[in-house]
Amino acid sequence: MQQSFLMNGGDGPHSYRNNSHFQRQDINVSRTMIEEAIAKKLDVMCFSSNPFRLADLGCSVGPNTFIAMQHIVEAVERKYLAQGLKSEMPEFQVFFNDHVGNDFNTLFASLPTERRYFACGVPGSFHGRLFPESSIHFMFSSHALHWLSKVPEELLDKNSPAWNRGRIHYTSGPEEVSHAYAAQFERDMEIFLSARAKELVVGGMIVFLIPALPNGIPASQNPYCVMFDLLGASLMDMAKEGLISEAQVDSFNLPIHVASPEQMTEMVDRNECLTIERMELVDSRSKLVGPINGKECAMCLRAGLEGIFTQHFGSGIIDQLFDRLSKQIMESSHQLESGNKEGTLLFVVLRRK
Amino acid sequence: MQQSFLMNGGDGPHSYRNNSHFQRQDINVSRTMIEEAIAKKLDVMCFSSNPFRLADLGCSVGPNTFIAMQHIVEAVERKYLAQGLKSEMPEFQVFFNDHVGNDFNTLFASLPTERRYFACGVPGSFHGRLFPESSIHFMFSSHALHWLSKVPEELLDKNSPAWNRGRIHYTSGPEEVSHAYAAQFERDMEIFLSARAKELVVGGMIVFLIPALPNGIPASQNPYCVMFDLLGASLMDMAKEGLISEAQVDSFNLPIHVASPEQMTEMVDRNECLTIERMELVDSRSKLVGPINGKECAMCLRAGLEGIFTQHFGSGIIDQLFDRLSKQIMESSHQLESGNKEGTLLFVVLRRK
Repeated sequence: MQQSFLMNGGDGPHSYRNNSHFQRQDINVSRTMIEEAIAKKLDVMCFSSNPFRLADLGCSVGPNTFIAMQHIVEAVERKYLAQGLKSEMPEFQVFFNDHVGNDFNTLFASLPTERRYFACGVPGSFHGRLFPESSIHFMFSSHALHWLSKVPEELLDKNSPAWNRGRIHYTSGPEEVSHAYAAQFERDMEIFLSARAKELVVGGMIVFLIPALPNGIPASQNPYCVMFDLLGASLMDMAKEGLISEAQVDSFNLPIHVASPEQMTEMVDRNECLTIERMELVDSRSKLVGPINGKECAMCLRAGLEGIFTQHFGSGIIDQLFDRLSKQIMESSHQLESGNKEGTLLFVVLRRK
Repeated sequence: MQQSFLMNGGDGPHSYRNNSHFQRQDINVSRTMIEEAIAKKLDVMCFSSNPFRLADLGCSVGPNTFIAMQHIVEAVERKYLAQGLKSEMPEFQVFFNDHVGNDFNTLFASLPTERRYFACGVPGSFHGRLFPESSIHFMFSSHALHWLSKVPEELLDKNSPAWNRGRIHYTSGPEEVSHAYAAQFERDMEIFLSARAKELVVGGMIVFLIPALPNGIPASQNPYCVMFDLLGASLMDMAKEGLISEAQVDSFNLPIHVASPEQMTEMVDRNECLTIERMELVDSRSKLVGPINGKECAMCLRAGLEGIFTQHFGSGIIDQLFDRLSKQIMESSHQLESGNKEGTLLFVVLRRK
């Protein structure tokens, strides 16, 4: 049974809409790379049909998705012009996809009025088919593919060496826990890539941004993983103070996997219809000005994770949990800032053969 | 400026979802006619491309739209089989369209899990473009096209002979009021048909159901119009009792037009790309068992009209207004039941040349 994990909806102080500037920063950092991929690698000559259809997989509620879709539409328009195809400029149709429970009402209400595309919402998990065969020309996904379709079952099995006691992630866990996460990620990516290969037209492209680790580097050097570890430690502190039980922590795991380029390459290579056009680690944090702001980081994580923590622990602990995280981020700021500089974001361009 | 008029969202006792069985009855009554149109008039041989795309314009939140879409998908599948095209059976993609403010979250959450189509939501007014050119094979619209895009301005102008003082509809008003409604309906239908002609593939079909009047029959013989008149009378009673002001009633008009086949024929004839394949009045009320139930009728009208009345009069009067309507419907049941038997629902099939 797949689970669905949702960003905070609406427009409030804890909403994803108002707390997703780090993800926006990543989209902006990769903008030139996306434009380059479209200019150099997207063969629009081979697309016979009007309209040009694009999709954002795991779009949440905006505004990031609108910014990304606008960039891509403009880049494709420039490509048509550059190829002397002005008279064949297509109309654009954008499919905004996320889980059924995503706040599509907010997404639709905030669609840019001046958009140059027809907009649709597509409810459903991208760990499965979403579109008819050969119907999409360009797919995009930002900060979504690191979500697993479910928590690997063995993490909850007290008799398994992968029982993840006292932790909520694999960051500082034993090898068996990491393996369980990696195996689930592989199963999910296989399904994801196979579905996308069916849905893309021949010559179509998929670009995605995903939190990542350089090859051979442990999770403890990745800032996301460090923050998940800090969240786990906060929960264990709260358990010791009697605010929650240790059993509640033992039975909770974040279904998030931070992949390496090597892992990703292997997954794509297993798919016979997709080729890697570009894969590169980006150090988007280096573009951020000033030192780490604990509160800002905690708010950003909260917008993405509040739902899943509330489901398991109830809403009563949320304020305190993220307050603690905010302080712990400041205390660990040296570790967070001095981590590897090779990059924390994987930029991937795949092409449908 | 277009206005948007929404059915009651959610799943509560006054929701459209739980109070739309009359509209469902109409969809069921016309089911055979839709199947016939697809079997006899839809030339699937001329559709080169997979998938088969269909749209429901003004779908609200279900379940009616799911029932209708399922019927249409099954009828198209039978058509492919009957033509010996089993191996070319397309995948289906259904576009659920309604105003941006429609409760798409409820719609998506209640999508049938066993559906045989890919589902999308399309936010926006059908009094304008919604889809790329030549991209839809079959369009459907039930109980939606009688909504005008806005209230004709002259109804609110004290110096105009079309000032609609003391009424909320044209039912028992002077000719100038009817003319203002008819003119707005014509402008809206022209835009609607022109947009659909662009969006349909050649050979594509549009089927719609719309509350209607036989040619030459006055609005006062149509049950919808009678009920709008009863609502107006209730409001005037409430104004006399000091619950609202008369000026509030004078400045409110229901943006709903009940057309005749003659009017509809004229509108389609003005469009050069669409032909009428069938147009017929259906007496769907004759299929209802037993006498009129005032409360049921009032609840059904409330699910569709509460939003627009609340916007103008505030939510405080709604319970009382529809309680009064319920009683008045019972008092007028003879008039409502003995009205013309030629039909109150117009079934229309158009084809894209």
